[in-house]
Amino acid sequence: MLKPLILVTNDDGITAPGLRALIRFMSTIGEVVVVAPDSPQSGMGHAITLDSTLFSKKVTVGSEDGAKEEYSCSGTPADCVKLGLQELLERRPDICVSGINHGSNSSINVIYSGTMSAAIEAGIEGIPAVGFSLCDYGWEADFEVVKEFVQRIVTEALKNGIPEGVVLNVNIPKLQRSQIKGIKICRQARANWKEKFDKRINPMGKHYYWLTGEFELLDKGEDTDEWALANGYISVVPTQFDLTAHHTIQQINTWNLNE
Amino acid sequence: MLKPLILVTNDDGITAPGLRALIRFMSTIGEVVVVAPDSPQSGMGHAITLDSTLFSKKVTVGSEDGAKEEYSCSGTPADCVKLGLQELLERRPDICVSGINHGSNSSINVIYSGTMSAAIEAGIEGIPAVGFSLCDYGWEADFEVVKEFVQRIVTEALKNGIPEGVVLNVNIPKLQRSQIKGIKICRQARANWKEKFDKRINPMGKHYYWLTGEFELLDKGEDTDEWALANGYISVVPTQFDLTAHHTIQQINTWNLNE
Repeated sequence: MLKPLILVTNDDGITAPGLRALIRFMSTIGEVVVVAPDSPQSGMGHAITLDSTLFSKKVTVGSEDGAKEEYSCSGTPADCVKLGLQELLERRPDICVSGINHGSNSSINVIYSGTMSAAIEAGIEGIPAVGFSLCDYGWEADFEVVKEFVQRIVTEALKNGIPEGVVLNVNIPKLQRSQIKGIKICRQARANWKEKFDKRINPMGKHYYWLTGEFELLDKGEDTDEWALANGYISVVPTQFDLTAHHTIQQINTWNLNE
Repeated sequence: MLKPLILVTNDDGITAPGLRALIRFMSTIGEVVVVAPDSPQSGMGHAITLDSTLFSKKVTVGSEDGAKEEYSCSGTPADCVKLGLQELLERRPDICVSGINHGSNSSINVIYSGTMSAAIEAGIEGIPAVGFSLCDYGWEADFEVVKEFVQRIVTEALKNGIPEGVVLNVNIPKLQRSQIKGIKICRQARANWKEKFDKRINPMGKHYYWLTGEFELLDKGEDTDEWALANGYISVVPTQFDLTAHHTIQQINTWNLNE
C-alpha cells in the first residue's frame, strides 16, 4: 500500500525544534515532505505574499529526522502551503500538519496564528489538516513527551477523515507525560488580549512602540480549550473557515437597510 | 448630544482614495479619527507585529476630508486598531470602519483580508465594526456612487448595535448607482483560489515565483455574497471570530483518541 503523503509546515521556520520533532513523529506514519518558512513568521495570521516575489530552495536541514524532501520558502506559512501544493509536491498530500508551534494557539490566538493559517490554507484546498501547538515558548521545550498524542491524532484523522470545511487546532499543555490526562474535543474559549504598548524613544529621539499584552479569559465554560489546557488535557478544536455568523442573519435582516 | 466617535482604518494605506472617501462619508455622521498603515498592507490577513517595533505619526493627509485627527502607523491593519484603541484615541470609539478596500473581500477572501482583520480586531475588543470593500481594484474607482449605502449601513449599525462577537463584511459591486438594487444580508460563499505560480529567473540566475490565481466559486446558493454581488446587490455578511465548527464536535468525539 502507498504510504500516506504528509505535508509538514510551521510558522517558526524550518530549523525550529518543534518542526523537527513533528517531522520525526510523522516519518513513522507516512512519507514526509517539508515546505516551511526560511525565517520565523509568528503572528503572521493568514498573510500571503501579493506584492513581492517568493523564493524556494531544496534544503537538507536534518536528514536524520526522516523527511523525504525539504524545501525552505521566503514566504508566509500560507504561502508555503500554496507553493507546496502547486509547485513542489509530486502528488496531492493525504494530510497537512503544521507546527509543532512553540507557544499556545488556543482561544482567540487562532486568529493571529501562522501555524493555524497554514493548516487552514490546506483545509481551503480540501486537504485534511491539523495545527499543533505546545504551550511552551522555550526553544528547548521537550517535544518527545507529546509524540504519542500527536501520532494518535494524525492516525485517527487519516482513518476517519476530517469533516469538510474543518481543520483541527490542537494545543498541548506544558506538562510531564504522566500529568497529561488525555485529549478533549473543545470549543474555542472567548478571550482577548489586553494590549499594553511599551513606548520608548530611539537613539534618534523618535518614539516607537513594542506591542505587549496580557491574556484575558472571558469564558467560564468547561467545554473550552482553555479549560481543557488548565485541567491537564490536550485540546482539539474543530475550526472552520466559513466565518458566517449564521445565527445573526435573521436579526440583521430587521435593520432598515433598503428603502 | 456627543457625536459618535468613529475610528477609520484600512489596509491600502493612509493615502488610498478608498480611505479618503470613507473619511468623508463618516465625517457627516460623527467625529472621525484615522489610524491607518503608512504603506499598503493587502493580503496581510490578521498579521500583527510581534518581533519588530511600531512607529506612529500624527499627520494631515487631507484636512478637507473632515477627520479630527489622523495617524499613520508602520504596522499592519490589526496593529493600527490595537494602537489606536490603546494609545491614540482619547475615548473608546462607538464604531470602527475599515476600508473602503480597493477590491473584493467576499467569500474566502475574508480570510486573507487586511481590511477585515482590522474590523475583526475591533470586534474582538468589543467595538462594533464594519469592513467595506468595492469590487473595483482601480485607484480611480468612483466611491461617491456608494456614499449613501455606506452611510446607511453605519447609521443602522450605530442605531441597532451589531450582535456580540460579530463584525460586518460589506462588499459593493462595481456598478452605476442606478444599477445597484439594494443591500442583502448573506452568508459567505464557498470558494477558493486555484493558484498559479508564475515561475521566473532573476538576473542572478535564481528561480523565483509570483503568486497568481483564479477565483473558483464552489457554491450555487442564492443566499451567498457572491450571488448578491453578481446580481446587483451589496452583500453584508455577519462574520464571527469564534471559529469553532460546533456542529462537528459530536462526530469527532467518536474518534478513538483516548485509551
